[in-house]
Amino acid sequence: MSILVVGSVALDSLKTPFGKREEALGGSATFFSMAASFFNKVNIVATVGKDFPKRYINLFEEKSIGTEGLQLTNGKTFRWKGWYGYDLNTAHTIYTHLNVFKDFRPEVPADLKDSEYVFLANIDPDLQLSVLKQVSRPKLVACDSMNYWIETKKKSLMKLLKHVDLFLLNDGEARQLTGETNLLTAARKVLSYGPKAVVVKKGEHGVIYFSRSSHFISPAYLLETVRDPTGAGDTFAGGMIGYLSTAKNIDSRSIRKSIIYGSILASFTVEGFSVDRLTEISMADIRRRYEHFKKITRF
Amino acid sequence: MSILVVGSVALDSLKTPFGKREEALGGSATFFSMAASFFNKVNIVATVGKDFPKRYINLFEEKSIGTEGLQLTNGKTFRWKGWYGYDLNTAHTIYTHLNVFKDFRPEVPADLKDSEYVFLANIDPDLQLSVLKQVSRPKLVACDSMNYWIETKKKSLMKLLKHVDLFLLNDGEARQLTGETNLLTAARKVLSYGPKAVVVKKGEHGVIYFSRSSHFISPAYLLETVRDPTGAGDTFAGGMIGYLSTAKNIDSRSIRKSIIYGSILASFTVEGFSVDRLTEISMADIRRRYEHFKKITRF
Repeated sequence: MSILVVGSVALDSLKTPFGKREEALGGSATFFSMAASFFNKVNIVATVGKDFPKRYINLFEEKSIGTEGLQLTNGKTFRWKGWYGYDLNTAHTIYTHLNVFKDFRPEVPADLKDSEYVFLANIDPDLQLSVLKQVSRPKLVACDSMNYWIETKKKSLMKLLKHVDLFLLNDGEARQLTGETNLLTAARKVLSYGPKAVVVKKGEHGVIYFSRSSHFISPAYLLETVRDPTGAGDTFAGGMIGYLSTAKNIDSRSIRKSIIYGSILASFTVEGFSVDRLTEISMADIRRRYEHFKKITRF
Repeated sequence: MSILVVGSVALDSLKTPFGKREEALGGSATFFSMAASFFNKVNIVATVGKDFPKRYINLFEEKSIGTEGLQLTNGKTFRWKGWYGYDLNTAHTIYTHLNVFKDFRPEVPADLKDSEYVFLANIDPDLQLSVLKQVSRPKLVACDSMNYWIETKKKSLMKLLKHVDLFLLNDGEARQLTGETNLLTAARKVLSYGPKAVVVKKGEHGVIYFSRSSHFISPAYLLETVRDPTGAGDTFAGGMIGYLSTAKNIDSRSIRKSIIYGSILASFTVEGFSVDRLTEISMADIRRRYEHFKKITRF
């Protein structure tokens, strides 16, 4: 019943109008697994350099996040530096140093090959495909991507999409991938590429879910304090897949609940820098916000 | 139990990527009353010039929209010309000819002074105030405004806000009026200006409702076809106030329902040019879309 995630574990230096951080814990696999760990056991497949702070490994261990597949490589950890202005929807990159990620070859440890829930976070689609080949028969495969891969590796991405159940992407990416302005049309087109369902993330404006049989739209949880939006999308995926992995059936009902859990987890992440908020909150906080969300959206 | 609206009745010439129209029926009071007329009797207080096409008066009459307060003035009808690019959220104005609206002094006919539901659509806040003085004891007063009045007549607008129950404005206006970026903070600040409740309209991203005692957030109904967004906000208000005027009590439950009806009505308006769609649909179409909306947002 455990979850496997392949993605990045990184050190982020960033500035927003509400503060700044140097070498904070970041990366898609990090945010995903921190969020999913509230629901289930998660194992990370990624790589870090010899300079990766031990305290972050300890944090993963505290959260029972498996690091067996986290390769320790000679060299430096993946680093991203960027900033956000008052429009927190747009990240401005100062640099991306792939470092040990440049030659990363994901290897799924033998005892994790039977993982039932697999999340292929945003990395080179060829690497995402190589992970898929290493797992035996997952119950659910979800993946993310980004504008860079849509531009430079569309063929590999399209091949990958034939093998995933759930594709998560943001509104801009959906438009870029399909050439359609209208999100409903774009989502329908994405479905025709192979995935059984697609989740279009609209940041502070919520989420749209599409499958052949149903669709679901939800606003985002409204916050008074947004300090750092980094990792919101991966946190969303972690909350979603985390919850789904505990559901008896993957059906319209559990998918809707999982999307709300994803939004709730993401709402905590953006309230603080890095994974700060995810280390502070408890399942009770998550449930409380879930119930509040229900209350303010019901009609 | 009838509804009174003061606002503009106009002739719109516009172009969107999906077509164009010359001298189509437009104006805030028009969209509002066309939408509200599905629920209740509405009366318009506005002015048009001698050139106003008789067929539009006939259309109001067909919809049982009262035109007793629609002054026929020597001169030309208010005209707006504009266009939208693929970003249908932004209207580009080519010209605004106030014409007979320049010297408009709204007069509420004697037998409408006891109207129970009053909507002060977007016009000079001094005129909105003068209408308020002419009605006796309305059960609900709602108003709209725009960036222009916030800029040029903020004092009058602030005075007006002390006398309204419900203030509808869009997200940009909420930020402009309060100087707050965060919508939750902005909405709270707007409440401190006097209105009992505020509705922040986010266009295709839905609606946020705030009062001292409760809040409600909703996505917009998702559409595959958006041809002309003109009048969406006023249609929303018409659907909202229209439904509320039929509710036994104005409480959290009826307000939430009214907001969904507002969104549904607006979703029809933007599917076509001018008021086209509002003349085609029936209450059954509205109810069907309302039920569908419920289905795709429930969790």
